[in-house]
Amino acid sequence: MSDDISRFSIPDLDSLPDDIRERIVGVQERSGFIPNVFLVLARRPDEFRAFFAYHDALMEKESGLTKAEREMIVVATSAANQCHYCVSAHGAILRIRAKNSLIADQIAVNYRKADITDKQRAMLDFAMKVSREAEAVSEADIAELKSHGFTEEDVWDITGVAAFFALSNRMANVSSMKPNAEFYAMGRDLPA
Amino acid sequence: MSDDISRFSIPDLDSLPDDIRERIVGVQERSGFIPNVFLVLARRPDEFRAFFAYHDALMEKESGLTKAEREMIVVATSAANQCHYCVSAHGAILRIRAKNSLIADQIAVNYRKADITDKQRAMLDFAMKVSREAEAVSEADIAELKSHGFTEEDVWDITGVAAFFALSNRMANVSSMKPNAEFYAMGRDLPA
Amino acid sequence: MSDDISRFSIPDLDSLPDDIRERIVGVQERSGFIPNVFLVLARRPDEFRAFFAYHDALMEKESGLTKAEREMIVVATSAANQCHYCVSAHGAILRIRAKNSLIADQIAVNYRKADITDKQRAMLDFAMKVSREAEAVSEADIAELKSHGFTEEDVWDITGVAAFFALSNRMANVSSMKPNAEFYAMGRDLPA
Amino acid sequence: MSDDISRFSIPDLDSLPDDIRERIVGVQERSGFIPNVFLVLARRPDEFRAFFAYHDALMEKESGLTKAEREMIVVATSAANQCHYCVSAHGAILRIRAKNSLIADQIAVNYRKADITDKQRAMLDFAMKVSREAEAVSEADIAELKSHGFTEEDVWDITGVAAFFALSNRMANVSSMKPNAEFYAMGRDLPA
Amino acid sequence: MSDDISRFSIPDLDSLPDDIRERIVGVQERSGFIPNVFLVLARRPDEFRAFFAYHDALMEKESGLTKAEREMIVVATSAANQCHYCVSAHGAILRIRAKNSLIADQIAVNYRKADITDKQRAMLDFAMKVSREAEAVSEADIAELKSHGFTEEDVWDITGVAAFFALSNRMANVSSMKPNAEFYAMGRDLPA
Amino acid sequence: MSDDISRFSIPDLDSLPDDIRERIVGVQERSGFIPNVFLVLARRPDEFRAFFAYHDALMEKESGLTKAEREMIVVATSAANQCHYCVSAHGAILRIRAKNSLIADQIAVNYRKADITDKQRAMLDFAMKVSREAEAVSEADIAELKSHGFTEEDVWDITGVAAFFALSNRMANVSSMKPNAEFYAMGRDLPA
Repeated sequence: MSDDISRFSIPDLDSLPDDIRERIVGVQERSGFIPNVFLVLARRPDEFRAFFAYHDALMEKESGLTKAEREMIVVATSAANQCHYCVSAHGAILRIRAKNSLIADQIAVNYRKADITDKQRAMLDFAMKVSREAEAVSEADIAELKSHGFTEEDVWDITGVAAFFALSNRMANVSSMKPNAEFYAMGRDLPA
Repeated sequence: MSDDISRFSIPDLDSLPDDIRERIVGVQERSGFIPNVFLVLARRPDEFRAFFAYHDALMEKESGLTKAEREMIVVATSAANQCHYCVSAHGAILRIRAKNSLIADQIAVNYRKADITDKQRAMLDFAMKVSREAEAVSEADIAELKSHGFTEEDVWDITGVAAFFALSNRMANVSSMKPNAEFYAMGRDLPA
Repeated sequence: MSDDISRFSIPDLDSLPDDIRERIVGVQERSGFIPNVFLVLARRPDEFRAFFAYHDALMEKESGLTKAEREMIVVATSAANQCHYCVSAHGAILRIRAKNSLIADQIAVNYRKADITDKQRAMLDFAMKVSREAEAVSEADIAELKSHGFTEEDVWDITGVAAFFALSNRMANVSSMKPNAEFYAMGRDLPA
Repeated sequence: MSDDISRFSIPDLDSLPDDIRERIVGVQERSGFIPNVFLVLARRPDEFRAFFAYHDALMEKESGLTKAEREMIVVATSAANQCHYCVSAHGAILRIRAKNSLIADQIAVNYRKADITDKQRAMLDFAMKVSREAEAVSEADIAELKSHGFTEEDVWDITGVAAFFALSNRMANVSSMKPNAEFYAMGRDLPA
Repeated sequence: MSDDISRFSIPDLDSLPDDIRERIVGVQERSGFIPNVFLVLARRPDEFRAFFAYHDALMEKESGLTKAEREMIVVATSAANQCHYCVSAHGAILRIRAKNSLIADQIAVNYRKADITDKQRAMLDFAMKVSREAEAVSEADIAELKSHGFTEEDVWDITGVAAFFALSNRMANVSSMKPNAEFYAMGRDLPA
Repeated sequence: MSDDISRFSIPDLDSLPDDIRERIVGVQERSGFIPNVFLVLARRPDEFRAFFAYHDALMEKESGLTKAEREMIVVATSAANQCHYCVSAHGAILRIRAKNSLIADQIAVNYRKADITDKQRAMLDFAMKVSREAEAVSEADIAELKSHGFTEEDVWDITGVAAFFALSNRMANVSSMKPNAEFYAMGRDLPA
């Protein structure tokens, strides 16, 4: 397995703890390929387990935010953090979840100009503030979210997703985690 | 013709001066659609003529930089300036000129991690400095470019492209110039 | 002709295409000297022609903005971009067009404190946003301009001038274009 | 239990899943008080479990970095992110682990002037770059770390700690997580 | 006397002009130690005299701001300027003047989250703008202060304290002025 | 006496303490006008005395830096801080002390392009770092200064001037201190 998907060495699948190898094989069977994030993080099994547990707790559960909306937060904040892997991989997921071939690129380049609702725009304004200057988030910001219909739990969810990808973007940027070529093309044939 | 491709009104093709209408019709015949930049800028014929004359003088002529390299400069600096239209349209052109389906997204997200040569990376480092803090460009920056084999004329060309799109990005962002949906898909079937 | 008015070589007037040489000679006859921008850009005739065509389309035409107001935009944004040539040359023009010996320096140092009208202050607030973070310009910014009486065409003009000098400042800074000594003194004997 | 340790509601201990309540009670028995982070995060059991699993995987394991050095990274990056909870709580832990009453405040205010080794200073330079502009981390930064004797695994550890607290700081800042008063005084009687 | 309290040499007490030596001895008698700022600045007697005259004119006089409030301004702005000496020394004085062991650390890390009144928060918002971007202070900022009950003289006092410590922070940072170890512990036994 | 030279009230000369009135009258006799800084600061006699004592200790004394060089530091840092009064007043003084009509405007707009020596450029690089990010000044910066022939005392002087005008710029910006019209024209007839 080539190391050039990361600045750090990649372990052999055979050398991995069973639970981690099984998760990776399961993803491969469902997706047709192994997203590189699984291979890059596998060298640290405990961190791997915590990372994906955290990811799933935020991204897979029921929420007042749709799964597409949560992916919008990932794409907007990861673009601001200039993270190759996250913009490519989650851009693909966003296209699929939103059933829209243009939305991910629009949000990555300048979410203020994307074809989204005013409520989604307010969600991304808040997520960007969490990502870029959380120290200045104030009650006024939260009141603004609530004026758009977001609940207390939604505020937590937006914060959680933006905060988790603050971690993820930094791991990917320092490790030079390379996105799989498959991601670039996924969902490109969906409607505009 | 809907105005929603810009915050400003769009003129009827029939109302335009002949040379401008003919340029637009010519592009439409070659491309199969009218890139929105032509429609958005047409309301000011003199500015339109100067804009495209400047563009062509930089982007179409012979140069020590390949046409793909000049598009790399456009994509990298336009992404830093968060310009929807330029990243989408010139991302498409870059994919086609570089015959590579991944390069444009890589450069847009973080050019430092893109699959380009060291010389191209130095070109983009310089172009980004021109775009973002030209006031601090020094002889040392130019010596660095020359150490990679760039000539005096190449330095001018890199500067010219970055400077022209500093203008273009601002016009597109303030006018909320919308990229044509066609751009997103162009060149996606090229090799990775 | 000494090259020290630019980091790049300066062509002989005799070697230039007729139209360019004639434009330069004409300026010299009217002004008593050749502003260096003509000499520095002349080495690229097509870019020269487009540059001055664009400049004249924005700065010389009829507009809802006075010529002095357009020069205010040039001086404010060029000062933010730390551009020697543009602050000196257009500072001189501003003093003359506004018939005021203090206004250019006031605007260059901190336009918020200059002796201008509230409407002009709003114009410069917008121009500075176009120059420094056009990606964040919103409908609210444009509504603010309109509340001061600016029309749709005025908004375009402010944007155009700020955008064109974003280009011009970058060319001047990278080429180390030196302002003619004449500019510093022009208009200094006007009223305060 | 008062909510004023967070902007979000705090669950009753009795209402929590057993594993979470037991972890909290265990901490209380060892420390004499319940650090507020446990109470604030407990309202989301799955996120709680992943958060502390990740924390422990980075902070409690064997590493080429001492536990005090890992706390230095937490304090330096959390101060840059202006995070009350993390600077107070981990400042206390740093004082204790480094057996030094001054080190935490020194690192929080300006780590460049703290009484640490050159190697630790290089570690914090890198951690701050991960925290503040990970997109620009380059091979040269990693070579600099290695010139100070850090290994590949150490580089990962520094990155992991800085990245995890990028997440943690954002959760704490948005939730207005309040540090327990106990933290401010802990370790103040250690040697200078 | 060791030089390691500053990058610059420290004069012998005996070599100093009488008025300066007497001021230093007086402080030592009252405090039990000589705060390093007196020793570091003493090498330039005229600057020393002006510095402390300015300090006392702002910090010791009657004012609409309490002495504790003036110290809040010092701590908040000095933390933003990452000044070891000022945060440590004035953090200690703030704890004592506010009779509160937590307030200084709270303000140093993120004054927006400190346990202070809304009026004090408005005071620090203004002081931070003076410290970090005084060029943008406007009548609206001053009206905001007055809406909280601050007078014209209070506005001057807030400005004066923030401006004086802009000077002081720069002298301390460039001279690597080291805070006395005594400061870290002072006022730590006060109520929370 | 009109108040419009400041946002704050201006005292009557007759109401001032003798020493302050005499200093003001003396300046008026020598200069032909009263520089507004004297009138604006006079409302706080103790601060006035300390301000001018500090100013004179730095700017009037013997130093390894010429008086013109010290004024260069004032102009460069005051321009970065966008301070009307200081750029205008000290720009005039710089023209006179350097016997050069262009130097002040050159340094105010972009000191990197001014017609100064390499040693003066290094001095201004350092002064700008003191003014804008003193927290990051390191031994390497000081070694760079010394490599240009600056002594330990010169380093202190550069720091002192940059630090004092950090204070002065903030007072002038918040008070909206207006430069006298006389300053703009002074020294404009000197050689280029």
